[in-house]
Amino acid sequence: MAKQERAIRTRKACLVAAAEIFNEYGYEAATIAAIIDRAKLTRGALYFHFTSKEELARGVLDEAVTSEGLVPQVLKLQEWVDISLLLAYRLPREPLLSASIRLSVDSKARSLFGTRWPDWIVLGRELLIEAQRRGELLPHVDPTDTARLFVGAWTGVQLVAEAVPHGPDLSAEISRLLELFLPNVAVPGVLARLDTSPFRAERLFEARSAQPVS
Amino acid sequence: MAKQERAIRTRKACLVAAAEIFNEYGYEAATIAAIIDRAKLTRGALYFHFTSKEELARGVLDEAVTSEGLVPQVLKLQEWVDISLLLAYRLPREPLLSASIRLSVDSKARSLFGTRWPDWIVLGRELLIEAQRRGELLPHVDPTDTARLFVGAWTGVQLVAEAVPHGPDLSAEISRLLELFLPNVAVPGVLARLDTSPFRAERLFEARSAQPVS
Repeated sequence: MAKQERAIRTRKACLVAAAEIFNEYGYEAATIAAIIDRAKLTRGALYFHFTSKEELARGVLDEAVTSEGLVPQVLKLQEWVDISLLLAYRLPREPLLSASIRLSVDSKARSLFGTRWPDWIVLGRELLIEAQRRGELLPHVDPTDTARLFVGAWTGVQLVAEAVPHGPDLSAEISRLLELFLPNVAVPGVLARLDTSPFRAERLFEARSAQPVS
Repeated sequence: MAKQERAIRTRKACLVAAAEIFNEYGYEAATIAAIIDRAKLTRGALYFHFTSKEELARGVLDEAVTSEGLVPQVLKLQEWVDISLLLAYRLPREPLLSASIRLSVDSKARSLFGTRWPDWIVLGRELLIEAQRRGELLPHVDPTDTARLFVGAWTGVQLVAEAVPHGPDLSAEISRLLELFLPNVAVPGVLARLDTSPFRAERLFEARSAQPVS
């Protein structure tokens, strides 16, 4: 393995371990010692990449806004749907993504690092503005308001689904949320063609190496 | 002031001070000393009511599910709307309510105390089941799913509104969220009669002493 490739893997292992520890203990109670232990690395190996818990948290948050798995669609609104479904599919499988929400709702971590919500809102708004330009949105829809409301709703639905006893599968729950939102966002001809299936993201994400984003 | 009345006031002052400290520092970093200092009470006065930080957190969460200000409406769905709007109006003004969300999203506090989301879901579901019985809901609406999704969406919209720079007013934001949800929940004749104004809750809440819930 090339030296650079090994360094990238070690850095990623540090971030995943930090994400797991943040998820389990919260930011405040998380310690570098627990993260080193979880990553199965030496202290020196971790400190080569990150010199503090703060830097690890920033590293986790840097990885949080991702549209990996997204492929161009005929309808721009389908891409907006796909980003939501992809994140719902990936979040329970990737500690880096769940830790990003955990850090965003933690008062101490939020005061230090802010959140990635503004970046998610920008990503959604840009897709909605393009959808609007193509005539896919109902006339009253404001792309900024809708993007911000949906980022909030997505986040809270995830938190509640995870917290309530026997909570629903996140992909199924986000699919239901989209079905509630979309009739008041998309024009009827577009609405009828949108695929909000909870199984869509798995197909998209697992096929991503064969279908690079153009 | 009667002895019992004074005790009730002191207990409430302890809870409000605890809520403020949980909001500002998070559960983990909050200390009994800071709470006593904030409540401007003696150690003995606080310990008469609460013997630990855990008990204070439980006390805060006990106060969290409230429909104060709600008055019976012709449409059951209007009562469901009113509970959402009332909470949006009160939360920025009442530390007990914001602290309840803070404790629910804190991993340590949640593992100790759970959340009040299941109770909010039951409250919403009961109103939606009654609305369904009266023919106010569209045929495809599942009261349990809709109640759970809305509790999640409400919570996340609050978190994002509070966190993003220059975030929107919570009452206006929850009013927009209701306008997005309701066309896919209410039958058209009911939808046209629902009042989702962000100013509705202030009128309801400030008039509550004159209009007791029957």
